Amino acid sequence: MFRNQMPRYEILSPDAVNALDGGWRRIVTEIGVQFAKPEAVELFRKAGQQIVDDDVVRLDPDFVLEQVAKAPAEFDVQARNPANNVHIGGDQMVFSGVYGSPFVREGDVRRDAMMSDFRRLCMLAQSFPQLDSAGGVICEPNDAPLDSRHLDMIYALQTLTDKFYMGNVVSGPNAADTITMSEILFGGRAAIERTPASISLINCNSPLRWDDRMLDAQFEYCAANQPVVLTPFLLMGAMSPVTIPAALVQQLAEALSGIALAQLIRPGCPVIFGSFLSNIDMQSGSPSFGTPESAMGLLCTGQLARHYGLPFRTGGGLNASQTCDAQAAYESLMTLLPTFLAGTNFVMHAAGWLEGGLVSCYEKFIVDIELLRMLRVEFTPLEIDPDSLAFGAHLEVGHGGHFLGAEHTMERFRNCFYRPLLSSTANYERWLKLGGKDATARASEIVAKTLDEYEPPPLDDAIRAELDEFVTRRRAELGD
Amino acid sequence: MFRNQMPRYEILSPDAVNALDGGWRRIVTEIGVQFAKPEAVELFRKAGQQIVDDDVVRLDPDFVLEQVAKAPAEFDVQARNPANNVHIGGDQMVFSGVYGSPFVREGDVRRDAMMSDFRRLCMLAQSFPQLDSAGGVICEPNDAPLDSRHLDMIYALQTLTDKFYMGNVVSGPNAADTITMSEILFGGRAAIERTPASISLINCNSPLRWDDRMLDAQFEYCAANQPVVLTPFLLMGAMSPVTIPAALVQQLAEALSGIALAQLIRPGCPVIFGSFLSNIDMQSGSPSFGTPESAMGLLCTGQLARHYGLPFRTGGGLNASQTCDAQAAYESLMTLLPTFLAGTNFVMHAAGWLEGGLVSCYEKFIVDIELLRMLRVEFTPLEIDPDSLAFGAHLEVGHGGHFLGAEHTMERFRNCFYRPLLSSTANYERWLKLGGKDATARASEIVAKTLDEYEPPPLDDAIRAELDEFVTRRRAELGD
Repeated sequence: MFRNQMPRYEILSPDAVNALDGGWRRIVTEIGVQFAKPEAVELFRKAGQQIVDDDVVRLDPDFVLEQVAKAPAEFDVQARNPANNVHIGGDQMVFSGVYGSPFVREGDVRRDAMMSDFRRLCMLAQSFPQLDSAGGVICEPNDAPLDSRHLDMIYALQTLTDKFYMGNVVSGPNAADTITMSEILFGGRAAIERTPASISLINCNSPLRWDDRMLDAQFEYCAANQPVVLTPFLLMGAMSPVTIPAALVQQLAEALSGIALAQLIRPGCPVIFGSFLSNIDMQSGSPSFGTPESAMGLLCTGQLARHYGLPFRTGGGLNASQTCDAQAAYESLMTLLPTFLAGTNFVMHAAGWLEGGLVSCYEKFIVDIELLRMLRVEFTPLEIDPDSLAFGAHLEVGHGGHFLGAEHTMERFRNCFYRPLLSSTANYERWLKLGGKDATARASEIVAKTLDEYEPPPLDDAIRAELDEFVTRRRAELGD
Repeated sequence: MFRNQMPRYEILSPDAVNALDGGWRRIVTEIGVQFAKPEAVELFRKAGQQIVDDDVVRLDPDFVLEQVAKAPAEFDVQARNPANNVHIGGDQMVFSGVYGSPFVREGDVRRDAMMSDFRRLCMLAQSFPQLDSAGGVICEPNDAPLDSRHLDMIYALQTLTDKFYMGNVVSGPNAADTITMSEILFGGRAAIERTPASISLINCNSPLRWDDRMLDAQFEYCAANQPVVLTPFLLMGAMSPVTIPAALVQQLAEALSGIALAQLIRPGCPVIFGSFLSNIDMQSGSPSFGTPESAMGLLCTGQLARHYGLPFRTGGGLNASQTCDAQAAYESLMTLLPTFLAGTNFVMHAAGWLEGGLVSCYEKFIVDIELLRMLRVEFTPLEIDPDSLAFGAHLEVGHGGHFLGAEHTMERFRNCFYRPLLSSTANYERWLKLGGKDATARASEIVAKTLDEYEPPPLDDAIRAELDEFVTRRRAELGD
């Protein structure tokens, strides 16, 4: 968790905010939002909203905002190590790892992700305090049985890390399993309803459609007071129009309608305004990340979420590069730096994302940790006082001298500057002597060392046994 | 030239600005600034400032600001192709290439820079509209005779590009040669005094000392009304204290005193408030670039320069990496993005800088051009109007559809998104088929193609003959 006390970089004028506000209101009123779950439609019908074509809800925007106002502006999420509890909202920033990749890349090898990768990425996430959570589906463990792999993933997140985790959203029953496993870990339903123990990602099937399986999961999580991130999934040109303002109003229509549903399921349940906003390459049709358009969308998203009083998710180390190269680095920072400028409350994909999210990359994980470490320093306000003005040091050194041995320097040299994890300032001859390794090769060494030094966080034997028993029983029930 | 109409990101409170203002005032008053040129000291003496120890000037800060107020807030610089004229100040950003490197890197080879490199880098700079100038000492041509190589460099800048160039500052006579060659190119002294034809970099021998050779060059340029960039050279921990506020007040003391001298030499002559601010790695003693500290210093520099009503120089694609890898990319963007956030008026080292400035790198040049292209789009304000809100596209597409074939998309698909020069969004299979080349390998191909397609800008034969004659004569006079 990082408290971002620097100013927010806001690029929308009040008139622009008004125009965008008018845009989503018109969409929900005249076009409506599709909810592919009868229980959701029924909740809206009961609340007086107009239903057309069975499952399209035409919403009164003022009704939507009444519901949105019931969502807490800030809330806590507990981790099994209380030192890793987080607070979502305000000027806090919370970070989790890459999510959803079917492949991994390690060194020069790109291959199907496996459960062993999932575990090793959990161990990496546990090892770096810049991540508040390993995430959820850090990679898709293709060698684990399909129907029960959510149990393996949640179990790994619960036991290999002592940070909060993201719940499974593949189906309602998977969500229910996640909740049950949280109950085991945290001592019962009341304990996790009081302070949520997971955050789960509910994606919209953009444009303007919430799908049944995601809604099933949302119903489970909201009923248990576990926060959900209602996230329009917008690659401009495919799932939204090609203009940023159009994408922003669509994002508002989708996210706010999903949040309204959450409040109908359980008034006051915690939610996060989600954003996943980039564009496709109109020549290849492939998704682009780290683009100027996504950075602008990100900055606007933060400003709009604040306008509606909601904690928000956006950003991360997004890029489209196939390897952990210069492109991977600059596209990621082109997203991560605006993520900090916007004061983003919850940042998914903060470490390890490569190749448009198809790949969880070990080396890229380390590059991203370095970026997060740098940005935390960069977004910490300066202290300006007589001591930091250092007039005495100037008196001591005078004209044309150097400050290397000055008293002011000697008192501060250990902690005065950012100390890199990955970056090298070695001169060329020394760098050659050290093997002439580029940043990615050095990252690979840091991965190996980190995994080698990893120690599992302690876990009560009785709780572990209960989790084991649950996983075994449910796996059998699921036929795996 | 790029007009940056986005908001400035300012991180100093009014109280902080006041504290920093008090800091430089105390330094110039109580410690003073050393000017290692009797003519400079004499100008300050005549203006009523106190001289101690022969060449240390204790300045009245209000006198300094009176002189600073004579400098124009904005001014023009002409290029021999009027389409490449630039305006320094206001919301304009002007970019020039890497400056001062003794080495070049091309592919896997790092070697001494040669005159042929200098020429090829001129050709690259000419080829990309993102650069307003190739710069000055793009690399140090080690194979050219030492005493006359400034002539070769200025000649290459004048003939291989039709953009403005930076003048030589090794000595007063070198500066005079630059001015003479500008007179030849632009039709006489009056033409370049009316609208300057070069910008020159005057570095401070920080802390608090302006050296004789730099001052000799400054006297020549200021007398000819050619702008100089008065630049404190601050690697915190070596040339300044280790705290950012201390570096900022030192920077103000140095830059403002140098600007005051410029106005004593020729009242009203154009100047740029310069900043070169990073830190050393306290473990290795090597310079660090792209650090959080340098980014914060950069943002503050912009705010302070505006406070004193001066156009300013800072930023660039700075990094300490030994190769064109992920580190080179993220450190460069960690500097370049704040360069835009600060609305920097003049950006040196905007393309090609590697290894702490020891190396001009061909591939890195292309990476930086890509970053500049992206940032120009990112810092262009959104247009929000009914057309960009695209309500009709939503009506057309409805729920769960896609916008690929929508009328709104078809009308805009060619120019709606940033089109990369270097970045690849190819899917993995296609990328492999194309050779599996990382960004640096692709950059190398772009370098070759660009140089292959380069066409020299037309130059009047009589002017070229006169330049040739001057260079030949001066080289003989200099004994080379």
